[in-house]
Amino acid sequence: MATPPNYHCLLNEVLSSIPLTTQSITNSYVTEQLNLETCPIVTVTSNEEAASIRSQVQPSTASRPIAQVLEQANSIFSYRLFNHHPRFFGFLPGPSHPVTLLSDLLLSSKNPHAGSWSQSSGPSAIETGLIRWLAEAAGLAEETAGGLFVSGGSMANLVGLQVARDQVSREEWEQRVKGIIYVSEQTRSSITKGLRILGFNNKQVRKVRCDEEFSMSVPNLVIMIKGDREKGLTPFLIVASCGTTNTGSLHIDGAYSASILLSKSHKHPHGISHADSISWDTRKWLFQTYGCGMVLLRNHSRLLQSFATGAEHTRDAADFGDFDTPNFWNFGSELTRLARGMRSWFSLQVLGLDCVWGGLIMGLSWGRRLRRS
Amino acid sequence: MATPPNYHCLLNEVLSSIPLTTQSITNSYVTEQLNLETCPIVTVTSNEEAASIRSQVQPSTASRPIAQVLEQANSIFSYRLFNHHPRFFGFLPGPSHPVTLLSDLLLSSKNPHAGSWSQSSGPSAIETGLIRWLAEAAGLAEETAGGLFVSGGSMANLVGLQVARDQVSREEWEQRVKGIIYVSEQTRSSITKGLRILGFNNKQVRKVRCDEEFSMSVPNLVIMIKGDREKGLTPFLIVASCGTTNTGSLHIDGAYSASILLSKSHKHPHGISHADSISWDTRKWLFQTYGCGMVLLRNHSRLLQSFATGAEHTRDAADFGDFDTPNFWNFGSELTRLARGMRSWFSLQVLGLDCVWGGLIMGLSWGRRLRRS
Repeated sequence: MATPPNYHCLLNEVLSSIPLTTQSITNSYVTEQLNLETCPIVTVTSNEEAASIRSQVQPSTASRPIAQVLEQANSIFSYRLFNHHPRFFGFLPGPSHPVTLLSDLLLSSKNPHAGSWSQSSGPSAIETGLIRWLAEAAGLAEETAGGLFVSGGSMANLVGLQVARDQVSREEWEQRVKGIIYVSEQTRSSITKGLRILGFNNKQVRKVRCDEEFSMSVPNLVIMIKGDREKGLTPFLIVASCGTTNTGSLHIDGAYSASILLSKSHKHPHGISHADSISWDTRKWLFQTYGCGMVLLRNHSRLLQSFATGAEHTRDAADFGDFDTPNFWNFGSELTRLARGMRSWFSLQVLGLDCVWGGLIMGLSWGRRLRRS
Repeated sequence: MATPPNYHCLLNEVLSSIPLTTQSITNSYVTEQLNLETCPIVTVTSNEEAASIRSQVQPSTASRPIAQVLEQANSIFSYRLFNHHPRFFGFLPGPSHPVTLLSDLLLSSKNPHAGSWSQSSGPSAIETGLIRWLAEAAGLAEETAGGLFVSGGSMANLVGLQVARDQVSREEWEQRVKGIIYVSEQTRSSITKGLRILGFNNKQVRKVRCDEEFSMSVPNLVIMIKGDREKGLTPFLIVASCGTTNTGSLHIDGAYSASILLSKSHKHPHGISHADSISWDTRKWLFQTYGCGMVLLRNHSRLLQSFATGAEHTRDAADFGDFDTPNFWNFGSELTRLARGMRSWFSLQVLGLDCVWGGLIMGLSWGRRLRRS
């Protein structure tokens, strides 16, 4: 058996090539941004091309020149949707602002372990501050308000749903079987998926009819709740995109449009401040890259009740349940986590609120134009 | 009400400052890497400093100079653990190789939506190829083998556990109440947390004693399973860090040490190829930044059975259940997801297997030294 190579042998080589390679990546990014109109909106591989790409995965034994791998990567990445293409309206877009490239690079260069306060107190302080500020924008002005940055809207919804479940029935299985959830016909798939992950049966989910404005019909909802109660069942959760009635727990899936709360001209809270939990994505109308959402809670201690664990290998870390100095691993499903919130912080600081407002206004005007046409 | 600013007004300003800012970020990264020995291992904020940082979150109305925000960010990030500090052994480290800075920047500059094949066929082809190759390294050589890149080990474990649950009892609550899970005394907290998320009661989890090698005692396990069966319960899942017996489903939490499968000199599969699902982190012994883990499955269609949804707003996308052309949103809990696997691909291509092997050997030699001292 040959002696294994020194792990460090490539460190200096890579470090010295970082300036040139980052320059190459960012140059082609800037060029692409300036010429978006001329790119195809989407390119999909043929079956043969896909097979050829799949065959390019096995690393060689030896290292390879970075520039060569970069060229290969660029060719692979060309088979994708340019989701911020100016002529693309076919899908929920990811309208990331170029400043997020800098936010992402910065976070990646620091790579903090924001699971615990002692490992990442600076970024964690920003994340708690930001969550509190956004919770306040949503009308959750209580001192107990808190939340968590997670990997996206689906995970934010999952956390909100679990908190609702655990508040109503922590260990009693029999109660869970009787728990009933109300969603509207317009509720997104991540809610149904989240309920399935949490162990709920499809028969426990009621679809409430919508009115002509696509809003959940409250009279219909009231009739359903009454009927379920008469059967001895336990209505415990309403999932609203925008709702007004609260029975048990009210979770709002505001992934896209919660950002309207930061608009000066279109601020219609519509009772959002009555929610127990809210999901809110940064990669949508906060113009970030993919990979970050938020869940906001009226009472952050409910997150602890659902997620805190006394892991043996974390017992030496002081157990910060205080939201001012949080061990975020006790607030959600991840143990190790990046300080995703720092990305939003950086972008928001650079852009300022007027620019975010401008983006919202632009999106709304496009929506109106599509509706008319 | 003032006219909202044009969202585009800052685009060119930011684009033109990208080269200088990335240079500034990467320069301070390289300097830090070359001077790690002189950094403090960890700095934690005082309460006053934390309060001061929390107060820096609200964006101003106007935009701010990027260099100014960057300076502020650097000061906030200084309050963290330098987890790859050469004198740091206190915690499971995040030993990321500098090449991952380039992988991360590249992925962020492309920002693909790898939820569906039609949006991201190039990166998706790499992800499926990489998963297959690693599954084969783990001994899952079946044509049906597959898996998913997720945000970390906790999420990988969660997916594996859910698949086991859904295979045994898809919609029958009564069966779930009788389902019994076996873990060892050494099992990580993410397993217990995952089971809680999935709706299992603590009373359904059995802790199997370990022998003097910290391995799950198989005789003890057999006695427990027999006892539970006699009570009319349904043993359905064994969670192994390294296991030999398979009853129902066998999930292996190999987050850290599964990477040993890529070592030439220490390859001891220890029955890992008998697993139904395996969790494997890239940010541990594959030397990536935080935010990526894998779940590998002997049979990828079990992921579809647990996670596929027919969402109304995705119904126009062809429903690719084929693992060669996957819509990854049907394979896990996230709808929108970054092509996290592309980061691992880029790093592995640049480093080559010998370098990864060198890193593993270095880690093992440190472990031996600590054991002796």
